[in-house]
Amino acid sequence: MSGTHRALPLDGRVVSDAVAERLKARIAELPFVPRLVFVRVGEDPASVFYVRSKQRYAKRVGVDAETLVLPETVEQAELMATIARLNADPETDGILVQLPLPAHLDAAPVLEAIDPGKDVDGFHPVNVGRLWSGAPALVPCTPLGLLAILDHYELDVFGKHVVVIGRSHMVGKPAAALFLGRHATVTVAHSRTRDLGAVVRTGDVVVAAVGRAGLVTADMVRPGAVVLDVGMTRVDDRIVGDVADDVWGVAGHMTPMPGGTGLMTVAMVLQNTLTAAERRRA
Amino acid sequence: MSGTHRALPLDGRVVSDAVAERLKARIAELPFVPRLVFVRVGEDPASVFYVRSKQRYAKRVGVDAETLVLPETVEQAELMATIARLNADPETDGILVQLPLPAHLDAAPVLEAIDPGKDVDGFHPVNVGRLWSGAPALVPCTPLGLLAILDHYELDVFGKHVVVIGRSHMVGKPAAALFLGRHATVTVAHSRTRDLGAVVRTGDVVVAAVGRAGLVTADMVRPGAVVLDVGMTRVDDRIVGDVADDVWGVAGHMTPMPGGTGLMTVAMVLQNTLTAAERRRA
Repeated sequence: MSGTHRALPLDGRVVSDAVAERLKARIAELPFVPRLVFVRVGEDPASVFYVRSKQRYAKRVGVDAETLVLPETVEQAELMATIARLNADPETDGILVQLPLPAHLDAAPVLEAIDPGKDVDGFHPVNVGRLWSGAPALVPCTPLGLLAILDHYELDVFGKHVVVIGRSHMVGKPAAALFLGRHATVTVAHSRTRDLGAVVRTGDVVVAAVGRAGLVTADMVRPGAVVLDVGMTRVDDRIVGDVADDVWGVAGHMTPMPGGTGLMTVAMVLQNTLTAAERRRA
Repeated sequence: MSGTHRALPLDGRVVSDAVAERLKARIAELPFVPRLVFVRVGEDPASVFYVRSKQRYAKRVGVDAETLVLPETVEQAELMATIARLNADPETDGILVQLPLPAHLDAAPVLEAIDPGKDVDGFHPVNVGRLWSGAPALVPCTPLGLLAILDHYELDVFGKHVVVIGRSHMVGKPAAALFLGRHATVTVAHSRTRDLGAVVRTGDVVVAAVGRAGLVTADMVRPGAVVLDVGMTRVDDRIVGDVADDVWGVAGHMTPMPGGTGLMTVAMVLQNTLTAAERRRA
């Protein structure tokens, strides 16, 4: 690597804007207005921020979005009743329960109570099963956003080796499914992986989705690799990714943090809302 | 590698016998007799053979197994009605539709019609979703059998690199899920993988599940690796695996073909039947 090399940035803002234009045009042609309901419990600042970002993007693309705010102390049964009501509402196309929930609530039964056809987060086991079975599914937004970035910059993964670091239900595992579907060779590494550097160096594409600041360093990345940073850790009031700054000197393409994959997650919530609406109302 | 080295065989017969003893003891203590129904359409010789093997193993472990034989010309609706009847039958714990079905029948809706709680093949999308979501699932038998072999021979995959060749719904993908659950680093390779040899050589454990005779050769295997051969191809009236004979000279442990992983698939159908019965009748 030369001291002056710098990876080309994969700009989440640019891709998010392009997706918004595309969604807006498609939604404008529908004979109905898709409707998305966010369910937020309490006033966790990160949740307030994320829901507001999605709500703003919804408005931009022409989706009718509403946020139901339930009190921090809401009981599980009342949250479940809210989901049931939204499932039954013929006008509601998408339901998104913002995580994390307060500690006294159990998220799994809530997520499984959402009608899989309205599950724009793609976390319901039925959608997970459809994704891995190759059936039409609603797919988690962060991994979908990774594909959207690669597609926008015309970076094809066919036959390439993609190394996904992290095996979460929300990112690592569904990303593996999507990249396999794109005919990449896929490796899933994680906290138990021995010699992470040796594994990551086999990657033509590296997805870092662990949430450990600066985990991926320049010596671990193959020169010219495409590096997608999903991790987000707060360090001294800054948001820091899983990928260390020195990787810019080695990678061929790389997402900035912030301004990279996180913006795409927001965009894909609305893409999923359109998908859900079109399937439901077909 | 030395010319005299020979991998230790992972004997499917030995493990299958051990599993049978364990299942038999557990089933003998139940207050009921688990019941498994095979649905076979037509007289495909391989299907006749496989169902007979499973039926024999069922008898051995004390499961009440019956084979429903439908005529080659059965219509989709009649097959679906058979599934519906078995779903509704409180005495039936497991349902297994032997594949492949004749060409005029569509397998996917049949498999999705099976009650997920009775789906001893683990192919239903709900079971697939539960597997990848970490929820209690019925898991496809061939990958389950791989774990049973490794467990019997006390070969731990924790932190090891497992390379799975093949991304089928029945073997490759669920094997990846199981090995991730055992904290292995997992790579899924397939027909589109570039430089398969380089990828396979990173494997401490190699699972070959493609169905291409002799695909994996000695030069592709890391000395001492554990090699599990799932592929089965008929060549001149012999059944040949995906792993070439010369791999015996390099691997540390290896399954023979025949006499390896195929026997475990049979055993795991009955293990799943016990699992299904215990959950249903709990």
